Amino acid sequence: MVLHGYSMSSASYRVRIALALKRIDVTTVTKQLRRGEHRLKDFLELNPQGFVPVLELDDGRTIAQSLAIIEYLDELHPQPALLPSSPFERARVRGMALLIACDIHPLNNLRVLQYLETALGQAASVRDTWYRHWIEEGFKALEDMLGRDASRGRYCHGESPSLADVCLVPQVFNARRFSVDLSPFPRIVAIDAACRELAAFSGAAPEKQA
Amino acid sequence: MVLHGYSMSSASYRVRIALALKRIDVTTVTKQLRRGEHRLKDFLELNPQGFVPVLELDDGRTIAQSLAIIEYLDELHPQPALLPSSPFERARVRGMALLIACDIHPLNNLRVLQYLETALGQAASVRDTWYRHWIEEGFKALEDMLGRDASRGRYCHGESPSLADVCLVPQVFNARRFSVDLSPFPRIVAIDAACRELAAFSGAAPEKQA
Repeated sequence: MVLHGYSMSSASYRVRIALALKRIDVTTVTKQLRRGEHRLKDFLELNPQGFVPVLELDDGRTIAQSLAIIEYLDELHPQPALLPSSPFERARVRGMALLIACDIHPLNNLRVLQYLETALGQAASVRDTWYRHWIEEGFKALEDMLGRDASRGRYCHGESPSLADVCLVPQVFNARRFSVDLSPFPRIVAIDAACRELAAFSGAAPEKQA
Repeated sequence: MVLHGYSMSSASYRVRIALALKRIDVTTVTKQLRRGEHRLKDFLELNPQGFVPVLELDDGRTIAQSLAIIEYLDELHPQPALLPSSPFERARVRGMALLIACDIHPLNNLRVLQYLETALGQAASVRDTWYRHWIEEGFKALEDMLGRDASRGRYCHGESPSLADVCLVPQVFNARRFSVDLSPFPRIVAIDAACRELAAFSGAAPEKQA
């Protein structure tokens, strides 16, 4: 399999973590987003949306969308499981992952930041405030969820990393990059630290990529 | 079970379709988002994020995030299935659903439109152009995906409605509401029409709610 990704893309980062947790080897092809390589015809053949990551299977078929890729990997390579076994707990983990993947990350995507700057003529400072705002809104809710639930533990859900942690760590990375004050989110900070003690998480970090 | 939702919320609309396809009866509680009812303390107890939909189970536990709710329903009530049986096809359907649920819908959420107007002082016309832009970007890619794949059929994936259709129909509803020109998207328009011939889809439409 080939993973088409980009070191700084947090959706690619999620997939790198999942692959490492499951010890699945893939070939990695890097797309330089800032040079527009994801907009070239060859890549649009693989993914009409022009987004990374894309997982290209050995038979040439492709899967886009990081959460779809990770659920696919989890179905084909069930151990270690990235979702709990009970439907309610699976929903809890998916809910936390989607809070990040739907309600934080897409608002801060490169194309959105570029739209703010070019189409709306906003200053870099306004763009950065926007960026922090959506992280802070999402993290407030997530911090609350992590604290109130009976399933709390070392990770987002209990004592082993799940799809929620796979999404959280890249989002915390982004938060730090944009100087979000993380002091109101001690549970998130502790879970991020616990995850990054694992080689699968630390090795998937942007700064560790070629 | 109780579904906390709102007629015009497209994430609530998705869950209404899924419940109807599976013929699951729930009690519906409406939150008037424009009056801020989702920001009241009682509701934040159910969902710290303050978003609808929330599915409240008979034992009082809650599930947030529409896709997490729908996957939960699909696991507990497998027929009719909203995901195909093969992992690759499941990934294809989830990928299309996530294209809408991550890369279109959150950018056009009420809170984001309000931020554009209040924090960024943008005119209603700029906000509406923004709204249409993200739908058009997403629909271009989706239209391409729907055409090229061997699994094309009456619906997004083959001959029965799936999670992708459950997300598509509310998004097309929003597109029409904001006067998006749908003529470049004939496959999307045809699939939307095919879905709305089914009572589960037509009965879940915002204008059919109390």
